[in-house]
Amino acid sequence: MSEKIPYKIYLEESEMPRQWYNVRADMKNKPAPLLNPGTLKPMTFDELRPVFCDELIKQEMDDTTAYIDIPEEILDFYRMYRPSPVMRAYNLEKALGTPAKIYYKFEGNNTSGSHKLNSALAQAYYAKKQGLNGVTTETGAGQWGTALSMACAFFGVDCKVYMVKVSYEQKPFRREVMRTYGASVTPSPSNTTNIGRKILEEFPGTTGSLGCAISEAVEAATSQEGYRYVLGSVLNQVLLHQSVIGLEAKKALDKYGIKPDIIIGCAGGGSNLGGLISPFMGEKLRGEADYRIIAVEPASCPSFTRGKFAYDFCDTGMVCPLAKMYTLGSGFIPSPNHAGGLRYHGMSSILSQLYHDGLMEARSYEQTAVFDAATQFARTEGILPAPESSHAIRGAIDEALKCKETGEEKTILFGLTGTGYFDMTAYEKYNNGEMSDYIPTDADLEKGFAGLPKVDL
Amino acid sequence: MSEKIPYKIYLEESEMPRQWYNVRADMKNKPAPLLNPGTLKPMTFDELRPVFCDELIKQEMDDTTAYIDIPEEILDFYRMYRPSPVMRAYNLEKALGTPAKIYYKFEGNNTSGSHKLNSALAQAYYAKKQGLNGVTTETGAGQWGTALSMACAFFGVDCKVYMVKVSYEQKPFRREVMRTYGASVTPSPSNTTNIGRKILEEFPGTTGSLGCAISEAVEAATSQEGYRYVLGSVLNQVLLHQSVIGLEAKKALDKYGIKPDIIIGCAGGGSNLGGLISPFMGEKLRGEADYRIIAVEPASCPSFTRGKFAYDFCDTGMVCPLAKMYTLGSGFIPSPNHAGGLRYHGMSSILSQLYHDGLMEARSYEQTAVFDAATQFARTEGILPAPESSHAIRGAIDEALKCKETGEEKTILFGLTGTGYFDMTAYEKYNNGEMSDYIPTDADLEKGFAGLPKVDL
Repeated sequence: MSEKIPYKIYLEESEMPRQWYNVRADMKNKPAPLLNPGTLKPMTFDELRPVFCDELIKQEMDDTTAYIDIPEEILDFYRMYRPSPVMRAYNLEKALGTPAKIYYKFEGNNTSGSHKLNSALAQAYYAKKQGLNGVTTETGAGQWGTALSMACAFFGVDCKVYMVKVSYEQKPFRREVMRTYGASVTPSPSNTTNIGRKILEEFPGTTGSLGCAISEAVEAATSQEGYRYVLGSVLNQVLLHQSVIGLEAKKALDKYGIKPDIIIGCAGGGSNLGGLISPFMGEKLRGEADYRIIAVEPASCPSFTRGKFAYDFCDTGMVCPLAKMYTLGSGFIPSPNHAGGLRYHGMSSILSQLYHDGLMEARSYEQTAVFDAATQFARTEGILPAPESSHAIRGAIDEALKCKETGEEKTILFGLTGTGYFDMTAYEKYNNGEMSDYIPTDADLEKGFAGLPKVDL
Repeated sequence: MSEKIPYKIYLEESEMPRQWYNVRADMKNKPAPLLNPGTLKPMTFDELRPVFCDELIKQEMDDTTAYIDIPEEILDFYRMYRPSPVMRAYNLEKALGTPAKIYYKFEGNNTSGSHKLNSALAQAYYAKKQGLNGVTTETGAGQWGTALSMACAFFGVDCKVYMVKVSYEQKPFRREVMRTYGASVTPSPSNTTNIGRKILEEFPGTTGSLGCAISEAVEAATSQEGYRYVLGSVLNQVLLHQSVIGLEAKKALDKYGIKPDIIIGCAGGGSNLGGLISPFMGEKLRGEADYRIIAVEPASCPSFTRGKFAYDFCDTGMVCPLAKMYTLGSGFIPSPNHAGGLRYHGMSSILSQLYHDGLMEARSYEQTAVFDAATQFARTEGILPAPESSHAIRGAIDEALKCKETGEEKTILFGLTGTGYFDMTAYEKYNNGEMSDYIPTDADLEKGFAGLPKVDL
């Protein structure tokens, strides 16, 4: 290879960002505030205090401060696995025969296997700083729970994870990773909470749901002295912490004078996409540069591409505040798919507003096409990608193939959020030719929309 | 942190080694040659040609050339996941309260999850260069098979893996990783080979063994046009390729003027340990520097610490050449343990000679103590280590604790060969307090020694 751009662009530790970037500060149309579902008034700091850590509430509500210092204690832990590399996909480009230049920001090189650790560390740190005893959360497939367990082990904070029972039983490996990091993992529904006991009584054979696990985690946090609830996506604070992804990526590309034309990320609740695009979107909002930004979501859970921009409950249990977002309705049940991290009915309020304002695009893919891309990527670039991340790969490959047709030498940057080591059951289905695709009908969607709260603001 | 040594020392891609180092060139007492088990004469190039690639045989037999160029095509793939970082274990040091400085060379940041890819790439490349159609190999837990599958996908060479049947059925995840990379994976014993059919006839319900899988892989290679057999450890060529670990580690430490006092690695067949120590051992052999070098092995399979230095078969099937090494006898069956990569009855001839000449030490640990170390490491350093690698962690922690007693500020370097993502069943046992320790009795060992071939040279 005679090119001067290396396969992996690493920042020095001394070049790592020391502040998070809050894209809301540069948004003319701010994301709508969380509403109290009882009063339909914006949630106040005091109303949120029983559930969230004080410092995190401040970050959640702050839509004017552009840069927020990353505490030195968090930087110390970031340095254990960050900066993450920006990789040049030379071998994928060659296999595709495209003139496009493909880069990806790889967030999977830590034991949690994804970008989730960036926010988990921040949330565990603020809990510790506030003198709390511990935090509670829910997890489905387990990426977030794993990241939080690691973060809590680092900071010496107790971690209670409510894991959807069917995952607890059928996917024991992530459960054991969490336990290795000292977390207590409870299959949900459980008899440790009122809501859990109630559900078990009504549905004795239930294997649980994310909505139920959220309700249990919130109850466990609010009913115990010194505990708070934490969440790995959707919230503004999470996108703030994840801005470290985009800040590093931009700085690494800037070192080599590389300016992406297209930036692509997968979107579930928006934590990765929001983090990756934030500094680029900032430039776009300030009129300093232009980028095509593309969100990729599963066709089975198409919040952006087929959802409504409306106030909705963040959880299926309808106990959390209302958020204004692209949503399929909190009662929408996505058909089974293998990208557990992209099965959320809604979307970050920040990204929803940006999409609504025409500042980014969205598209959806069926999962077989996504696994085609995952396999091609694995065989050429080596890394076995998570099903979630593979949505972004599919998007990047398709843009690169368009360049092949037109002869354009576009520069594409996508977010490779994580690895698929704990998703081999999905790969097995794909390898055996047994993968199915599911697309909700319009009637399916109408059922979800029918459950939207009647809020007109 | 005010220290100037970063958490992770990365070389630039331009600083990566461009030659492997062949430690045999600096050994006064050369490792003994492979013997033909029929004639008891050293194996010739022509005798080895039906089984191994030509270039690899040359590397196997060359004990005088100190540096061998790494072909540009291999460097291109090394650049996708190398250089691997040397990490400073600041958080582990703090948790131990030791004045020792602990560094580890981390080889787990690639999809194969271990250092095995370094040699797999070389072996697949030489097969391709020779115009072969493909390679065959055996795998137990699957690390080597995974690495080889990735390498063969990169170079476009067919890959046939014989996987011990019990692992094929009970550990389907690594099997699916291999299939994702396009390898064919056959449970062994199978009816695709004469030896497999014979064993199935004699023992219809057998779940297979590594010895049987080796025999099938060798037969599959020698009975098909354009196929050769490849192996992931023990051989001189493998240690040559793995020298890239030590060369990078030494260069990274040299950049900061760091000189290790103690170098520690886990030892199964010797591929990782041999690679890590090679340039340091070279200095020691040439009288330029001194290092304490410690091999760590499981108490359940103590080749160095309780084995005999003798000629023995490399495989339990007794079809491969004889190698002079520290061995427990090819018929020795280690008690079950969770470090599949350290269950080999013998040891690299190079390392065996160095140990015999007093140039390195060895010690063994029981597996509960190893998992204690693994868990402490995971919680402080973040990375969830492979059970194999955790033997080296145990050794490093114990040396660091000695420094705590004596107040010595020793510098320790150990090899963290891989991650434990596919070993969560073992962690589950440990988390549940159900892990057992096994140490062979002297009588167990005598049974193994009784099977040693009667060779007196």
